[in-house]
Amino acid sequence: MINAGALGERKIIDMILKRLQQMPHMPIPFGDDASAVDLGNGRLAVIKTDMLVGKTDVPPKMNMRQAARKAVVMNISDLAAKGVKTTALLVSLGVPRDLLEKDIVQIGEGLNAGAREYDAYILGGDTNEASDLVISCSAFGVAEKNSLMLRSGAKPGDIVAVTGEFGKTASGLRILLGSMLPPRRLRKKLIDSVLMPKARLSEGLALAQTGAVTASIDSSDGLAWSLHELSRASNVGFMIDHLPIAQEVEDFAELYGVNPVELCLYGGEEYELVVTVKPESFEKVTKKVPLTRIGYTTARKSLMLKMHRKRIPIEAKGWEHFRTAPPRT
Amino acid sequence: MINAGALGERKIIDMILKRLQQMPHMPIPFGDDASAVDLGNGRLAVIKTDMLVGKTDVPPKMNMRQAARKAVVMNISDLAAKGVKTTALLVSLGVPRDLLEKDIVQIGEGLNAGAREYDAYILGGDTNEASDLVISCSAFGVAEKNSLMLRSGAKPGDIVAVTGEFGKTASGLRILLGSMLPPRRLRKKLIDSVLMPKARLSEGLALAQTGAVTASIDSSDGLAWSLHELSRASNVGFMIDHLPIAQEVEDFAELYGVNPVELCLYGGEEYELVVTVKPESFEKVTKKVPLTRIGYTTARKSLMLKMHRKRIPIEAKGWEHFRTAPPRT
Repeated sequence: MINAGALGERKIIDMILKRLQQMPHMPIPFGDDASAVDLGNGRLAVIKTDMLVGKTDVPPKMNMRQAARKAVVMNISDLAAKGVKTTALLVSLGVPRDLLEKDIVQIGEGLNAGAREYDAYILGGDTNEASDLVISCSAFGVAEKNSLMLRSGAKPGDIVAVTGEFGKTASGLRILLGSMLPPRRLRKKLIDSVLMPKARLSEGLALAQTGAVTASIDSSDGLAWSLHELSRASNVGFMIDHLPIAQEVEDFAELYGVNPVELCLYGGEEYELVVTVKPESFEKVTKKVPLTRIGYTTARKSLMLKMHRKRIPIEAKGWEHFRTAPPRT
Repeated sequence: MINAGALGERKIIDMILKRLQQMPHMPIPFGDDASAVDLGNGRLAVIKTDMLVGKTDVPPKMNMRQAARKAVVMNISDLAAKGVKTTALLVSLGVPRDLLEKDIVQIGEGLNAGAREYDAYILGGDTNEASDLVISCSAFGVAEKNSLMLRSGAKPGDIVAVTGEFGKTASGLRILLGSMLPPRRLRKKLIDSVLMPKARLSEGLALAQTGAVTASIDSSDGLAWSLHELSRASNVGFMIDHLPIAQEVEDFAELYGVNPVELCLYGGEEYELVVTVKPESFEKVTKKVPLTRIGYTTARKSLMLKMHRKRIPIEAKGWEHFRTAPPRT
């Protein structure tokens, strides 16, 4: 019989979703970055859970403080992508028997640091014995119903924009997993992007306030995958004519003969926001939130990259559990 | 250096809690069954996370449907103990590579069944690759601030009461883990209590409405442990003069020469509510919610069992990760 490894993450999610009865009038549909419950008076409780597993999500050189902080930040990022501030988090821990006392202290410190950086608090949790280190966080926030940013809502002609540059985590991960030793300054920047990810909370909150954002997602599964998710949820396509490749990524790619376009599009664990904005409001929006325009939304449901007068399809590739082997060079 | 196995669950929790800054004005303190965020207008968002790990929480003969259902029920039970109805749940899954397709289907079915039994819905989640099966659920509900039942609040002279009988899961677990084969009817009842636990939701909601409950906890770590937790949070002691041992447990204990008092006090995974009630209101409360009186609250902070004119201390024993070996007979 087929097993989980053969099915892959997305198929497993589909199989489970199919068995769940939907809550009537869900304010945020299944499959968006977060979920919501109507609180009445135009307010929503927005909730999200995301699990960090040591074996697959903690690269070498990431200490337990950083791992715990990351587990918190990835949840805060998901709410930020909806324009929602995380108020409180819960943490469910799976702890291997041989985890050291100092690592447990670091987990406590990292959880608190991740939450307090974004003005949130850890309210409680649960500790269990497990074979892997598991840090499962749940984030909670309250939002105004009409300022929520969903994955659906992008319209043809909208501008696609991002909150930062891409490719640093994909490069940093290759350094951590491989034997490359780029110059110190470059190395530090790329590795830091993996070890100390940042959630775009203030940007997400400000974007939600503009009322000009038609769709939004965080790029935790990579830029290409995020665009495909927006495309699927909004039923539109994208023409990307400017790739937001970080300078450090260009330098890294040149040094080691890697393709910077691949690093930029098909990485992951990069917590930028990818949004579509009403074209007439774009200039006004960028005065409030620094955004980089990377292309526009099309009625035709295809994802294309325009580069050197060529059009290249953007594949639906990104990090997938059971499927993606960590890149090794 | 000391590792997690040597520290034990409760010490690990203490070490982590020490590193967390407390949210000011927490409506429910650290260490209660659930946590809360103030929503204004006298309302609270009540949240809880609890993780089921295959290796330690899924006994032999429990199928994946039952395991997933249990993961949901144990969270609903925690909110029920606070007098709160779970509206929505999130699920974070850790899935081993070799888990079969049919088991994944059963997990989807069990999650939905557990939620719908209590009129809640699964709103979303997250799937990951892990070495163990991990089902981490988070429950969400909204409550009136002044009807919340906490662990603290018991006063000397209050009546201690429970919503049902004890010892069935401890007996059932011994059957599942051992080689005993009691008569069919007895076997079925005891095993069912392990495989299909029930949360006391309607009882919890009705108890909260009476305004006569001074403290409340669910008995998931065993009756003795729950009493110790109430004692610690309320700064009182208990004199237990009637043990709520199920008849099936008496029969089982006699058949196999086990001590029924041990089965009743020091089991776990039994989702009854243990509450303290104002003595003058007890009769009125039992007309609304069937409760069994088991003793009374004392000013002296000790836990005693009065039996056959003897007084025996009730120990602070119960299920603890890293510490408790599953009982084998």
